[in-house]
Amino acid sequence: MYEKLRKAKEAFKDIRTLDEDSRNRVLSDFSDALLRNSDLIIEENRKDLLKATEEGLSSSFIDRLTLTRERIEAMASGVLKVKDLKDPVGNIIEERTLESGLLLRKMTVPIGVICIIFESKPNVAADCAALCFKSANVCILKGGKEAYASCRVITDIFRDILRNNGISTDCLILMENMSHEETRKLMECNEYIDLLIPRGSSRLIDAVIKEARVPVIETGAGICHIYVDESADQDMAIDIIVNAKCSRPSVCNAMETLLVHESIAESFLPLIFRALNEKGVSIHSDEKSHRILPETLQASDEDFHTEYNDLIMNLKIVGSIEEAVGHIERYGTHHSDCIITEKEENVSYFFRNVDSACLYHNASTRFTDGEMFGLGSEIGISTQKLHARGPMGLEALCTYTYELRGKGQIR
Amino acid sequence: MYEKLRKAKEAFKDIRTLDEDSRNRVLSDFSDALLRNSDLIIEENRKDLLKATEEGLSSSFIDRLTLTRERIEAMASGVLKVKDLKDPVGNIIEERTLESGLLLRKMTVPIGVICIIFESKPNVAADCAALCFKSANVCILKGGKEAYASCRVITDIFRDILRNNGISTDCLILMENMSHEETRKLMECNEYIDLLIPRGSSRLIDAVIKEARVPVIETGAGICHIYVDESADQDMAIDIIVNAKCSRPSVCNAMETLLVHESIAESFLPLIFRALNEKGVSIHSDEKSHRILPETLQASDEDFHTEYNDLIMNLKIVGSIEEAVGHIERYGTHHSDCIITEKEENVSYFFRNVDSACLYHNASTRFTDGEMFGLGSEIGISTQKLHARGPMGLEALCTYTYELRGKGQIR
Repeated sequence: MYEKLRKAKEAFKDIRTLDEDSRNRVLSDFSDALLRNSDLIIEENRKDLLKATEEGLSSSFIDRLTLTRERIEAMASGVLKVKDLKDPVGNIIEERTLESGLLLRKMTVPIGVICIIFESKPNVAADCAALCFKSANVCILKGGKEAYASCRVITDIFRDILRNNGISTDCLILMENMSHEETRKLMECNEYIDLLIPRGSSRLIDAVIKEARVPVIETGAGICHIYVDESADQDMAIDIIVNAKCSRPSVCNAMETLLVHESIAESFLPLIFRALNEKGVSIHSDEKSHRILPETLQASDEDFHTEYNDLIMNLKIVGSIEEAVGHIERYGTHHSDCIITEKEENVSYFFRNVDSACLYHNASTRFTDGEMFGLGSEIGISTQKLHARGPMGLEALCTYTYELRGKGQIR
Repeated sequence: MYEKLRKAKEAFKDIRTLDEDSRNRVLSDFSDALLRNSDLIIEENRKDLLKATEEGLSSSFIDRLTLTRERIEAMASGVLKVKDLKDPVGNIIEERTLESGLLLRKMTVPIGVICIIFESKPNVAADCAALCFKSANVCILKGGKEAYASCRVITDIFRDILRNNGISTDCLILMENMSHEETRKLMECNEYIDLLIPRGSSRLIDAVIKEARVPVIETGAGICHIYVDESADQDMAIDIIVNAKCSRPSVCNAMETLLVHESIAESFLPLIFRALNEKGVSIHSDEKSHRILPETLQASDEDFHTEYNDLIMNLKIVGSIEEAVGHIERYGTHHSDCIITEKEENVSYFFRNVDSACLYHNASTRFTDGEMFGLGSEIGISTQKLHARGPMGLEALCTYTYELRGKGQIR
């Protein structure tokens, strides 16, 4: 393992000075090669699928693991999209002359060696390889063993292209067959790794935060709220809520809890219940809303802390916008939260008092996404406050350096 | 302890919506109160000094611990300087309309609850209190027990002012009498603390990185290099080297290792030796330079990994700029490194290949400092790559949030 990490660190010296054209050439070659090799990829993916089926893994797990021709095409076109993004490296963020006469330039530079720890989705391998390479970072992939054959073939294709372009193949490294003890050691290696990004279940993410000494960007967990204010346009509210809950319930930007102002509850709750019921959503309601909607389940306190990732949600009546904000601050994960209102002063109150990465007024929380934000592909959605917040694109894979030019200045 | 942390989290709800004028008023009151209470502060500081003397702590330790009237005046004027800085909160970083028609605004917001772990310098308490308050963050101070009485009085003065201004006194909290076990638990509390900044010895910093689950910004350790290139202006080189080594050897931006191109070594080494010798600098030289300067000590490999923080330094002859860069990458701490040369292409090579927070051309590394960079006071110098690099001013104490305004958009 340490030998691989040493090689990764060495490779960073190569990649960080590689010009934009060379990096882009590798990415377009990679995209082509994914398409050209799709039979081979599907064949290797079958090995993983066969094992998963034998081991009796869940159908949603197997769905995430499966690569089809369409998914490979999506992967290849994703790589091209990353290629076409603006070079995030070597940009001047700031330039000024200091009192001492030194010329200061704050320049974007790659972070270094980035290790992505993920679970069963093999397309993560291609996405992360492309995003890291575009931003001149070395990428170490540590995927779940269930997706090993699939990740191996994708990585090998990328490394072949690096070799053909005369670039160190260690710019992309797949870790394999690691024991729990080795994984723990990996996460402690701040000598070789500059950043850890865990992608996947909250169990995985918690384990990484607990064990790591390498700086981590926490991603993922989303208990997203929508608050329907007294003055809300109720038709709009229904559209937004149904979209936020039902358009893709398994993802982190889906709504988990709906808060409704008490003054409109009597009229609004039956309407939203009907709309959600049609979509098969199961509702866990607090005491007050249960009185209006006795056909729903009763919510426990624990429910309000739950990210269902499913067609299940919580419902609560609040007496004021202050109570809504208080609830979100207590139960939320600072991911994406929304207010539906026609009152501008309530928007400002909500925006100033809810401490989340993404705050919405009159729009679905489902927009929290790198592509929707115009960042191109994303490497994850940060729910911590350091370095990057919300959807992380190429910019989040860069840091900066101060260049100072003098004429013999001393202090 | 958890009670205090809960209060800190609560106080953040107050402070984050406090307007700029109210924050500035607190800071000017604080500055006044430091001056008005300087007798009291000196009296409390004496208690710490007395104990330190009884315990036989080193004179440099006692020097760092000592508060004089002048130092209190400097502290008070530092607070005013922070007050006069531009408000870092509520600024629009980016504003654009997304394809969906959503209006996206990326706004600066405070990070939340910031815990500073420091050792014996009581002025750190006042500096950090001011920087955190200016940026609308709650500040938790965990100082060394040796400086307890001094930090206590400074904190009490600040909390009195908060009280007089009708603001939660828990915006500044001093942790006291903590056992090692409690400190460990503190560093695990990512539920209550958003950021840990350790300030002090590398032993302290390493311990924090090892134990913490809360995100940490690593500060401090500086093994800074100066490389004198073949084409260097040798007179300029001597001035810069003497300044970088001798003007304040105890600080992290002082030079520890001098690298000299072999083609100028014969002529340059005796000159620089004379200049440094006059200042009382002891030189540890590698084999080649020892042949030219046999009166110096011989350097071990370990020496090149050492931050002396003293009038001691390493000297090494390199055959090329590539060798110089290789040495810096291997032994450096990515803090501040300098090339002295008249050749622009060597500047670019050095800047592109040395992966440090601050890169200098023809200037002393001693400029790595928040005030010198025009950031006002600094909360530390980051030597990691995430979030902030180099001197960290108010901007580094902020994060951002995405505000998205829609008209009913769904995905």
